[in-house]
Amino acid sequence: MALYSFDKSLALFERACRVIPSGIPGHTSPAFNVPGSFPYFAQSGKGCRYKDVDGNEYIDFMAAYGPIVLGYNDPVVDAAAQRQREAGGLFNHPTERSVELAERLLSLVSDMQWAVFARNGSDVTSYAISVAREHTQRRKVLMVEGAYHGVQAWCRSGTGGLIPEDYEHVHTFHWNDATEALDLVKRYKDDVACIIVTPFHHPAFGDQVLPAPSFFADLRRICDENGIVLALDDVRAGFRLSMHGSHAYFGFSPDLTCFSKAIANGYTLSACLGKAALKAAASRVFFTGSFFGGAVEMAAALATLDELERRDAIAHMMKMGTMLQDGLKELARARGLEVVVSGPPTIPYMRFANETNFRRMQRFSGEAARRGVIFHPHHNWFMMEAHKEEDIRQALDVADKCFEVVKKEFGG
Amino acid sequence: MALYSFDKSLALFERACRVIPSGIPGHTSPAFNVPGSFPYFAQSGKGCRYKDVDGNEYIDFMAAYGPIVLGYNDPVVDAAAQRQREAGGLFNHPTERSVELAERLLSLVSDMQWAVFARNGSDVTSYAISVAREHTQRRKVLMVEGAYHGVQAWCRSGTGGLIPEDYEHVHTFHWNDATEALDLVKRYKDDVACIIVTPFHHPAFGDQVLPAPSFFADLRRICDENGIVLALDDVRAGFRLSMHGSHAYFGFSPDLTCFSKAIANGYTLSACLGKAALKAAASRVFFTGSFFGGAVEMAAALATLDELERRDAIAHMMKMGTMLQDGLKELARARGLEVVVSGPPTIPYMRFANETNFRRMQRFSGEAARRGVIFHPHHNWFMMEAHKEEDIRQALDVADKCFEVVKKEFGG
Repeated sequence: MALYSFDKSLALFERACRVIPSGIPGHTSPAFNVPGSFPYFAQSGKGCRYKDVDGNEYIDFMAAYGPIVLGYNDPVVDAAAQRQREAGGLFNHPTERSVELAERLLSLVSDMQWAVFARNGSDVTSYAISVAREHTQRRKVLMVEGAYHGVQAWCRSGTGGLIPEDYEHVHTFHWNDATEALDLVKRYKDDVACIIVTPFHHPAFGDQVLPAPSFFADLRRICDENGIVLALDDVRAGFRLSMHGSHAYFGFSPDLTCFSKAIANGYTLSACLGKAALKAAASRVFFTGSFFGGAVEMAAALATLDELERRDAIAHMMKMGTMLQDGLKELARARGLEVVVSGPPTIPYMRFANETNFRRMQRFSGEAARRGVIFHPHHNWFMMEAHKEEDIRQALDVADKCFEVVKKEFGG
Repeated sequence: MALYSFDKSLALFERACRVIPSGIPGHTSPAFNVPGSFPYFAQSGKGCRYKDVDGNEYIDFMAAYGPIVLGYNDPVVDAAAQRQREAGGLFNHPTERSVELAERLLSLVSDMQWAVFARNGSDVTSYAISVAREHTQRRKVLMVEGAYHGVQAWCRSGTGGLIPEDYEHVHTFHWNDATEALDLVKRYKDDVACIIVTPFHHPAFGDQVLPAPSFFADLRRICDENGIVLALDDVRAGFRLSMHGSHAYFGFSPDLTCFSKAIANGYTLSACLGKAALKAAASRVFFTGSFFGGAVEMAAALATLDELERRDAIAHMMKMGTMLQDGLKELARARGLEVVVSGPPTIPYMRFANETNFRRMQRFSGEAARRGVIFHPHHNWFMMEAHKEEDIRQALDVADKCFEVVKKEFGG
């Protein structure tokens, strides 16, 4: 089989660069993938596969960086969205969907008593910070070094355009180091509003790290003893570890939790849920947007949550993800290559051990893309309910060929 | 005809309050309308009318606070969105729609050479600030006192959850007072990154004020002489004054301009456009979101822009808005009531003169809602292409009855 080429992607990228800064900005930038050996523009999708503008088809393990949790163009979700679309999406008022979705999420997600809706993950992580500040009347936010909580200035996820005042009261500690968090709490005594964490650590360009057994219990105790709000950023992992929230999966109880990505199978929606004690503070934080009441996305979310349950999707994705993780490890070993496979099976990541320049990983990912499989070189991957055993087998066959190329070019 | 009642809206609001802080947060809150005399939840819409959950139908002059510029459920826009939906909305990469939409906007909007896309108006006004700070390597932002630029912390649009550092470098001057802006520039010499303005002043709870003849020319000169970026927040007015941007309508040339609301007839989208000189800075500001590449909303925007042009929608809305504004003034005068009608015809607002407590306006709006017309008491209104003469006549008939009620209850 001839390897894929990306002529139309590259031509369209040139056209894009003339009218859009960097052509493709942000996390979908080709610079963050494998420049020249990766698709740049998508055309259509179905299930766990999509086609790019060159007509190349891929088995996908990125799920649009997470949102596509059932599969591309899921017929049940799209039909529910379309029914709402026919009534209307946006009005002067919310629709009954917002009440239904709040009720549904609260019945599903452990320990939470209220919900608000927005559009981006960043909207709700930033809202969580504001609610914590309002509730505590304090300023400081503690977050994990290298964690990604979105694109607003306090998150400091880039460098351009920021001023020091944007993150003057945001301080970092290292993942799984509750002692360091406690040191910060002692240093900023009576001024720490919030500790915000992801359910596991998933830095770009790095292995994923699960929580140490006592990490969340320690953070919970530190927060309780010092009147600090514990906020969970479940934007990336939500509804891929547990239908009850990733805090239920890891056995702890945050005061606030944030969802987006998988909540509506690709429709634009985010939600912040909280405990009753923070409801009054939440109502005092002005939080709105022209599209926050959009009903189509909420109808999609209601259908997505139903289908995730009905299809026992997380259990299935765990099984398929384990098959992928085990298969990659075995194939690499058989080729005499060392790989590190990290993260939960539904949100896996693989890199080559003993390399920091990612040259093997770039080659592996580029070769996989040229053979019709998307394994991201630097960012964690995402399983979908649409992945079946045959897709995993086919992807592993491609992975084996790519391991062969890497072995040949780089040696051990 | 029996006046409308809102029993189902009120019952649903009670249910909402149990699971959502304030029940309906933000700008669609009943507290911002006429509590008890206004619909709280919408059901369906078509053209310039929508129904609430009680089955009451309204001629609407709010357009979902702006986004619905053609009409609810416009068949051409919805068909274009649905075609894209069938291919797919969200992928690991953008689609060709993002390039097409950037090209289309740049061919349409005066003086701009690049475009980026996001979801909320706040996303792009905040991005504009970051681009200006990156370009100038300065900190200060000057904005108009009482202007609304969105919900992020620097905009200071609420009070809860904010800390002074959020807006430490944001300073305000009064609308139409370029001298005051210049005073701030002199005070913060060499540290002013950006002046951000709306194309006309539209404070909540106040008359709308058009720009004084020299205001924008003065701001432009101040910016040019001091190396400051002039940013336009055209989120609210965009594509209701001119297809070339509201700066073309008022005859000035900003360095950046922000669109959202009307750009896609209710689909969730925003855009920041800029001049070539700022493209490098724009590319250095990390700006991304899980849904920023969403193609369905971009397909809807392409169709919306085409239809606005094809139907000569702005000219039509200007005519209908003028008919509404003139009619309201005449009817009030005939009843011996003094009203102030302000703003451009496509974004009108009316309040009763000589009152600051808005009691007459609350009564007028509540009575209108009970008779099937939405005139917001505190926020500017929005015309739609779907408004036809018969709708305006019918709305004015209702307005006349409401003026009668106000006259009877409050006197002159």
